[in-house]
Amino acid sequence: MIKAGIVGSTGYTGLELIRLLSQHPEVKLEVLSARKEAGKPIQEVFPHFRALSQDLRFTELNLDHLAECDVVFFATAKGVAMEHTPKLLEAGVRVIDLSADFRLKDPGIWETYYGMPHACPELLGDAIYGLPEINRSSIEQAELVANPGCYPTAITLGFLPLLEQGWVDPDFLVADAKSGVSGAGRHAEVDFLFSEVQDSMRAYAASGHRHWPEIHQTLTQVARRNVDLTFVPHLIPMKRGIHATLYAELTADVALQALYEERYKNEPFVHVLPKNSHPETRFVKGSNACQIAVHRPNGGQKGVILSAIDNLIKGASGQAIQNMNIMFGFEETLGLQAISQIP
Amino acid sequence: MIKAGIVGSTGYTGLELIRLLSQHPEVKLEVLSARKEAGKPIQEVFPHFRALSQDLRFTELNLDHLAECDVVFFATAKGVAMEHTPKLLEAGVRVIDLSADFRLKDPGIWETYYGMPHACPELLGDAIYGLPEINRSSIEQAELVANPGCYPTAITLGFLPLLEQGWVDPDFLVADAKSGVSGAGRHAEVDFLFSEVQDSMRAYAASGHRHWPEIHQTLTQVARRNVDLTFVPHLIPMKRGIHATLYAELTADVALQALYEERYKNEPFVHVLPKNSHPETRFVKGSNACQIAVHRPNGGQKGVILSAIDNLIKGASGQAIQNMNIMFGFEETLGLQAISQIP
Amino acid sequence: MIKAGIVGSTGYTGLELIRLLSQHPEVKLEVLSARKEAGKPIQEVFPHFRALSQDLRFTELNLDHLAECDVVFFATAKGVAMEHTPKLLEAGVRVIDLSADFRLKDPGIWETYYGMPHACPELLGDAIYGLPEINRSSIEQAELVANPGCYPTAITLGFLPLLEQGWVDPDFLVADAKSGVSGAGRHAEVDFLFSEVQDSMRAYAASGHRHWPEIHQTLTQVARRNVDLTFVPHLIPMKRGIHATLYAELTADVALQALYEERYKNEPFVHVLPKNSHPETRFVKGSNACQIAVHRPNGGQKGVILSAIDNLIKGASGQAIQNMNIMFGFEETLGLQAISQIP
Amino acid sequence: MIKAGIVGSTGYTGLELIRLLSQHPEVKLEVLSARKEAGKPIQEVFPHFRALSQDLRFTELNLDHLAECDVVFFATAKGVAMEHTPKLLEAGVRVIDLSADFRLKDPGIWETYYGMPHACPELLGDAIYGLPEINRSSIEQAELVANPGCYPTAITLGFLPLLEQGWVDPDFLVADAKSGVSGAGRHAEVDFLFSEVQDSMRAYAASGHRHWPEIHQTLTQVARRNVDLTFVPHLIPMKRGIHATLYAELTADVALQALYEERYKNEPFVHVLPKNSHPETRFVKGSNACQIAVHRPNGGQKGVILSAIDNLIKGASGQAIQNMNIMFGFEETLGLQAISQIP
Repeated sequence: MIKAGIVGSTGYTGLELIRLLSQHPEVKLEVLSARKEAGKPIQEVFPHFRALSQDLRFTELNLDHLAECDVVFFATAKGVAMEHTPKLLEAGVRVIDLSADFRLKDPGIWETYYGMPHACPELLGDAIYGLPEINRSSIEQAELVANPGCYPTAITLGFLPLLEQGWVDPDFLVADAKSGVSGAGRHAEVDFLFSEVQDSMRAYAASGHRHWPEIHQTLTQVARRNVDLTFVPHLIPMKRGIHATLYAELTADVALQALYEERYKNEPFVHVLPKNSHPETRFVKGSNACQIAVHRPNGGQKGVILSAIDNLIKGASGQAIQNMNIMFGFEETLGLQAISQIP
Repeated sequence: MIKAGIVGSTGYTGLELIRLLSQHPEVKLEVLSARKEAGKPIQEVFPHFRALSQDLRFTELNLDHLAECDVVFFATAKGVAMEHTPKLLEAGVRVIDLSADFRLKDPGIWETYYGMPHACPELLGDAIYGLPEINRSSIEQAELVANPGCYPTAITLGFLPLLEQGWVDPDFLVADAKSGVSGAGRHAEVDFLFSEVQDSMRAYAASGHRHWPEIHQTLTQVARRNVDLTFVPHLIPMKRGIHATLYAELTADVALQALYEERYKNEPFVHVLPKNSHPETRFVKGSNACQIAVHRPNGGQKGVILSAIDNLIKGASGQAIQNMNIMFGFEETLGLQAISQIP
Repeated sequence: MIKAGIVGSTGYTGLELIRLLSQHPEVKLEVLSARKEAGKPIQEVFPHFRALSQDLRFTELNLDHLAECDVVFFATAKGVAMEHTPKLLEAGVRVIDLSADFRLKDPGIWETYYGMPHACPELLGDAIYGLPEINRSSIEQAELVANPGCYPTAITLGFLPLLEQGWVDPDFLVADAKSGVSGAGRHAEVDFLFSEVQDSMRAYAASGHRHWPEIHQTLTQVARRNVDLTFVPHLIPMKRGIHATLYAELTADVALQALYEERYKNEPFVHVLPKNSHPETRFVKGSNACQIAVHRPNGGQKGVILSAIDNLIKGASGQAIQNMNIMFGFEETLGLQAISQIP
Repeated sequence: MIKAGIVGSTGYTGLELIRLLSQHPEVKLEVLSARKEAGKPIQEVFPHFRALSQDLRFTELNLDHLAECDVVFFATAKGVAMEHTPKLLEAGVRVIDLSADFRLKDPGIWETYYGMPHACPELLGDAIYGLPEINRSSIEQAELVANPGCYPTAITLGFLPLLEQGWVDPDFLVADAKSGVSGAGRHAEVDFLFSEVQDSMRAYAASGHRHWPEIHQTLTQVARRNVDLTFVPHLIPMKRGIHATLYAELTADVALQALYEERYKNEPFVHVLPKNSHPETRFVKGSNACQIAVHRPNGGQKGVILSAIDNLIKGASGQAIQNMNIMFGFEETLGLQAISQIP
């Protein structure tokens, strides 16, 4: 049993960390920090936790308290993790950051996109980008894991096999991504009211989104050359789920289906669907799976990759626990075997 | 480990039985009968089952095959369970019927409401009504359990404490019940298309619904006198969940909150919320819990009970497994500890 | 052509007033006051108004400007209308208040439920309660109309025929009401985020809601004696619509269907559906209609009335325009003939 | 006043034709043919039509009856319009076909995609493709208008200005399109049940969709050379609306915003939004507008065009009426000025 702490426990990714970790056989939830609700039992604030047998309370952020944990998860807004991580690392705590603070290697780009100075740029080099499908062995040894964003996870897993092989024209990659509303977080904003969102959809940040440099960094690394990626995110009237539709010019006569099946055959959480399939976000909802299908429209030279994840699980809290499992030598799927509830 | 079979595996309650039983530590899924999909692997028809490690296939209904099970669940339309149950009981198989075939004691009323002759009225007396909160000890010994309907579960648990004490006027009980659309099943019908249902709501069967005699039978038994129940169901644009709002005239100066807390203090799945609470269906979604809150509007003589369940879990498949746990001497909550996913 | 002003133009009822009045053949929109957006063209803030040919801008609240209107609508939070109405009336402007400021006759009850002193209790007696189906002739002469709440409209129209005749036991009236989320207004609140509301439902204010005294006041007046009303509102995951399910003990052998058809045969906006019908909120969405159906479950002595409106139209802005039509001698249905869009 | 007939009145596009035409000042609805509901008053089958003053009934399809109309709309499945159109044209009736029967010029391609022989290939040459923004003057004279599909309308209007100028690489055009569920029609199918669709999304027909040849035909004609179009449609959990996200390599240093504003400045139904805008389907819902916004992500060489319509209005029934207005010399916007209802 390891002791785990969560900073930022009452956002959507924090709530999912609590839910998943409370049922993880190797984890004891030790600290749930949440400024606004400090002092309250979690069942009082969130009645779905009445089904929990444990007696847990939210607390103020307290570094001494967190330093007693084996691992601390940051499920916070930008800027919080980078403030506290150096002290936790010093204290021997391993850190998994679900925010964007440690995802980019270049502090200049980070500051451009996030609009504030970085508090510990010297850690950016050490932070391991927590996508197990490309960095599994580094994650095993990592002290600090930068858990990938939700869009980057779905898009990177979708482009990965083609870019690794170099069988695609890297000068025109399109990632048209659709996200459920929980991606916007649990903040009081008119734009995400039910009455504003339901029964409608829209693109946003079409001229440039914060996840672009993160995706670009990983795809460029995988392709071993610069890629020209156009990424447009959309807001869909559903609670959870990301569906990425990826377009690219194939440069070789690729056996797409075989390529993807081979690449992911040993990955426990990436499921390549049979030919002519179309993943649906409901089929991965609540699960840590990424479902992928590949197409060549009208038998032509363009490839279309469909990639679906649950933005709060494989796109956030589930992947964070997958990283924790790897870091602590647990079975990688431990605590992550849930199957989607249909309907 | 016991061997379990499911008849009618591809409806919504059948799918939930598969999901829950496949992760139950004491159960081996032996038979999944489903006429239309017989022969196919379950992952092919329902891609969310790709997360399952087991290799399972749908089969034709085969009594010899079912007779090798320890328990068989019927998740079928009316008429199927009553046709096959006698032979299974003879073979020593215990049967849990999620359909309405064995819920009513009076075959005449059954035939009036279900519009067909009953195939084995002689079994109606032996069938145990599977609501553990009133029949736990009979369920332990039962060979045949009639699993309650979804509306009856939510409404009975809501009225139970007041009727047991006789602290309520039984001549004017109102149950205004709201259900998610999955209650209508997985049948191709224009009325339940997304475009017909979403962003709208309606009552239905306001002049009389099939669940009325079932609810009336149980409430009358609990009250030990006839009750005059008015029950109106409504269709709500959500996938799962039942919310029952119950109204009654209190005949005594009842300490409502204390009464409910006391009655349910040992029930693992009935959670009485604190004063001034309002259960939400999302807080019980995917869980076997029933959340109840009690109110006395404006401090008057009317009682209002709010009761919420997941219609497919505590209102169907979860309760069926709770019954199975009781019948086979397992821990009652085994395989049923899931916590709702928020959001 | 009359000149109309709207105070509070950017809430949901304000937006609907703009939409409906901009297409009303006898109205010129003169003033759209909206503090936060003052100075901006309405198409810039709300792109759906690009379909409008008129050139309209939001302005600061300016009483001199409003005083040039023939009629001013308040679509504001509590407290705003009562602050400005006296001066507008003095200036000869007729006022239609969509907020709750003038709905209750008793200032003491108002202050209890709304938690602030009333600014002009002397006007409460003169304000006409704007439900045309009971007050049409008073509305014709009114200088100040208190436009009814959404719940009170649906519930009063539902109980009206029975209470007028005295054919119902007034000591146990139940109004179980369900509302779409737009009823909560266009305010940034976590509770009404898409991710909190969708695919779930709940009751609220079960121990007492602000609309209770308004409904109670009208029902008591119609019944010519005190009524004991239990009213529980519910939040439904749909944008618009109210569905009220009303329960009462019938004291006579009432021909319910005939009673309702007769009572409403000359009402242009109240449609009594044929026997065995169930109104759906989608069928009145965007229209000023109230659809009503009546039932006697199992042929017994209880009456069930189903009443559906669009909370923003017949429950707010449409009814306000209906009142304006009556006040200014226009055809009562002018500008209100829209038919719901299905699906 | 002209006399209009509708064949296929009870599908979603038929219902919208009834709603819009019943309020059109120059049209008298003469025939509403609908096999299954023949003989019934429309208010009985669709209660939202109770707000209509006219007395209308559904009838059997009767060519003599239809021949008395000035214009007949086909809102039918493939194959029906092509069977009856020749006789109606002979009788001097003008025909607007909302189905796909007359959209493709090449009968061989039609037969490949629609899987049946074409009944009157000789008419394909005469049929005018009813997209007013490119064919207005031909539509004026047309006897037979092939009303465009919903996806083709949104996508063609989006690519049009760039292709007309030749400022885009035609060898890699991507149209990622998202549709509400009403696009699937009003048919009883499990795949479009509320419980299957809500809170989820998916691509479909990624390897080839029936609308592809229609879009390809128009884009190729506009570009005056062959285009390589990749088109992937998606099903979104909303009732109405299409959002197309279009991607292309710009070949010149294009002033995108100016190009689009200039091209559409005289188009009554195409609204180019200001820089940095993102259209939302709710802003065009119920209206005949197409809203377009243009972007150059990160200031690069790729263009992103966002185009939103209501699939049942500008994508079907509204555009059909726009065509009718042009054909009969009415004001083009007559009966089509509705503004979206927000929320």
